[in-house]
Amino acid sequence: MSNTNKPSLHTSLSPTLLHLYDLGNSIVVIIDVLRATSTIATALYNGARSVIPVDSISRCMEIGKQIQGVTAGERDGQIAEGLEYGNSPFEYPREFIEGKTLVLTTTNGTRLLHMSLDKGAKEIITGSFPNLSAVCNHLIEMKKDVILACAAWKDRVNMEDSLFAGAVISHTRDHFSINCDSSHIVEKMYEKGKKDLFSFLKNNNASHYHRLMNFGLEKDIRYCLNPDGANVLPVYSDGKLVAKARN
Amino acid sequence: MSNTNKPSLHTSLSPTLLHLYDLGNSIVVIIDVLRATSTIATALYNGARSVIPVDSISRCMEIGKQIQGVTAGERDGQIAEGLEYGNSPFEYPREFIEGKTLVLTTTNGTRLLHMSLDKGAKEIITGSFPNLSAVCNHLIEMKKDVILACAAWKDRVNMEDSLFAGAVISHTRDHFSINCDSSHIVEKMYEKGKKDLFSFLKNNNASHYHRLMNFGLEKDIRYCLNPDGANVLPVYSDGKLVAKARN
Repeated sequence: MSNTNKPSLHTSLSPTLLHLYDLGNSIVVIIDVLRATSTIATALYNGARSVIPVDSISRCMEIGKQIQGVTAGERDGQIAEGLEYGNSPFEYPREFIEGKTLVLTTTNGTRLLHMSLDKGAKEIITGSFPNLSAVCNHLIEMKKDVILACAAWKDRVNMEDSLFAGAVISHTRDHFSINCDSSHIVEKMYEKGKKDLFSFLKNNNASHYHRLMNFGLEKDIRYCLNPDGANVLPVYSDGKLVAKARN
Repeated sequence: MSNTNKPSLHTSLSPTLLHLYDLGNSIVVIIDVLRATSTIATALYNGARSVIPVDSISRCMEIGKQIQGVTAGERDGQIAEGLEYGNSPFEYPREFIEGKTLVLTTTNGTRLLHMSLDKGAKEIITGSFPNLSAVCNHLIEMKKDVILACAAWKDRVNMEDSLFAGAVISHTRDHFSINCDSSHIVEKMYEKGKKDLFSFLKNNNASHYHRLMNFGLEKDIRYCLNPDGANVLPVYSDGKLVAKARN
């Protein structure tokens, strides 16, 4: 196939940059590696019926009550007041979450998801290292234009979401036409760091690495950087994320 | 000196991200490597009295007439209609530009400069590889907070401006406290590419590399990636950029 016949792939490094890309005909991959999209993949992999992403604690409590869901969210590394669980993927093993609905508070990721909806994204999925292969296989199979949308941190570009975008590109590049410097930058960085992503974040002073380490969450970081531990494809539809049935 | 006593350094990868940073007490370095800030350094190094950056062709013609300046600007790789010269640094040798004022049309860079003014930047200078050392030495000497502001390309992050930000960080990092993932990302990329920046842009499909190569401007690209060929410090004041007198 000639290069020009391939679908395009772009990387938006921050929600603030999302408006630069044409979402109308694209699959948008929401990326919030530490830890929202890793936890979403894990809960769905372990049998959660769905995950409802919400942008505030009050909305989380409200929906949780309506549907008798599991409410989750953190502020400054602690379970937020009024909610039941936190943001760690380790809080959602199969024996707890199977058959339940998780209502998850995630500021950056939920906002980005709503922005993507507003801009008419054709399909929205979520991506993280625990479901890297599921995301890559889906993108290759669908043959549609792709926007890798990093949730970032309060709109500031972050290293871990950029690294995941780089990982996706590294695994799918032959299937896309990539005319996007952001994509080339993150792929280069991923190639440099892929042997040991944990050390890469540490050695390069990634701000979120320090933030979570200060909360004693090394185990979470290591899990969230490890590929395919919860290899499911979360697809957004009608207010919630559900695992796509395998073919 | 302890880390916390050092001034801070942040990198804004696109004008769209500039509002995230506190410019009020900072030196802002405007970066538009291909080719605006490289040409500004070159013209001043070769004795131009000043460079007036403007954001439109009509404004360029108007000011050029008022002050009898040299008008310059391009559209799609050609000298813009109504102007006299183009954006190439090679158009401004000493025998031509000495003692004159250059009125330069630069869309991305000028907009970023005006944004920085609006946000109350303490000082605005321009940076490019031809004046890399002058910029680094000034930043080290001043001991103020720094924002490296990439002009990007129509707000999309680009590789060459990111590489220059990385070069500045690589040369000044010990003098700053850097809690900014964008800065760590671009420094990493610069370390990877610094041995041969031209090949790095080429091999990583930098979009601006292709754009200028299509215009037959390989010589310009090579010049604009070469450190210290026009090692002067352009400082913005009162509508124009002038070379800072050496101590």
